[in-house]
Amino acid sequence: MEIVILLFDNVNALDVVGPCEVLSKMPNTVIKYASKTPGPKQTDIGIKLIADYSLEGISKPDILLIPGGIGVKPITEDREVLDWIIDKHKTSTWTASVCTGAMLLAIAGILKGLKATTHWVRLPCLEDFGAKPQRKRVVVDGKVITSAGVSAGIDMALTLANLIAGETTAKAIQLGIEYDPAPPFDAGSPDKAPKKILDLVLRKLEERK
Amino acid sequence: MEIVILLFDNVNALDVVGPCEVLSKMPNTVIKYASKTPGPKQTDIGIKLIADYSLEGISKPDILLIPGGIGVKPITEDREVLDWIIDKHKTSTWTASVCTGAMLLAIAGILKGLKATTHWVRLPCLEDFGAKPQRKRVVVDGKVITSAGVSAGIDMALTLANLIAGETTAKAIQLGIEYDPAPPFDAGSPDKAPKKILDLVLRKLEERK
Repeated sequence: MEIVILLFDNVNALDVVGPCEVLSKMPNTVIKYASKTPGPKQTDIGIKLIADYSLEGISKPDILLIPGGIGVKPITEDREVLDWIIDKHKTSTWTASVCTGAMLLAIAGILKGLKATTHWVRLPCLEDFGAKPQRKRVVVDGKVITSAGVSAGIDMALTLANLIAGETTAKAIQLGIEYDPAPPFDAGSPDKAPKKILDLVLRKLEERK
Repeated sequence: MEIVILLFDNVNALDVVGPCEVLSKMPNTVIKYASKTPGPKQTDIGIKLIADYSLEGISKPDILLIPGGIGVKPITEDREVLDWIIDKHKTSTWTASVCTGAMLLAIAGILKGLKATTHWVRLPCLEDFGAKPQRKRVVVDGKVITSAGVSAGIDMALTLANLIAGETTAKAIQLGIEYDPAPPFDAGSPDKAPKKILDLVLRKLEERK
């Protein structure tokens, strides 16, 4: 099973690493990190991730995974990358996104008529491209699986591992990475966070633009 | 505030990226990725992470973070790296570990007499180095904060962000990365996973050695 992740500058590092930590543990799996220009890609946390493959170096991945991050913006106008996404999606068994990676699927026309999710700040924007936004952590519609912001990629990948490799494997992966989450606060979604926290995050995200 | 993460070949990628996704969002923070030999480091998920700094290039980090992974093994006998950890710990405000990174702190003598945790498979081994193993996700003892396996680094970092930058900032970070975890199964700890899953993971980890 070949999994291909699209990398680009200013990709969100956890969007990439979270799901791969899960998916790489499925049996007979190879992950390829591909980018328009292979080489080191800057991330939001300062560490550079290396893309080993060019887009042309990828033929027909079984799973296509599109991460998010502030680096998504320039790609929304990059016809070459968007056409590559459309082409790989044609033959993929699963097409997946984490966080604002869903915006690239949406702009590529892949989410038209589908239920989908993305980072809560961007959720209403999915509708502009004919998708049906869902306030959910993970959404499966046909062969397209989308997830909410950043850390939700781990839950998405476990859902996918269950669909592909079955419950025993998915649970073993979960135990292997000791994914028994216990955040010290219950402020991880816009429904749960206090209003002042919500406003603070919206202000910070606005500043980052 | 300077945060330094030790990188090495076959480091666990999520051990590095999970906490950094949280800690990098604290105000006035810089993260440095350091290694005995700077350059690309292989990870368990096939992606290479780039270490920009040599060990000598690091003076007095405020936070020293040691990740885990199968690459920990060779470092347990690497006096140069162990001495570096001891030296940086002397002046750090916080010394932290994720997963089996705690084994390096233990061997360096840092956990002697302290409560600490690590990946559940390795937890009993902490005792060999005078630590008091705790079946907990995150353990704070003095200025040393240790976490359970792999994904627990995210919870550890949120705990640390709260201690350093306060509750409002920690909650805003949690909301920013939409960390409202919802794993599809409840099998993420040895207490919760069925016996057959536990045996499967132990067998897999044994094969990887």
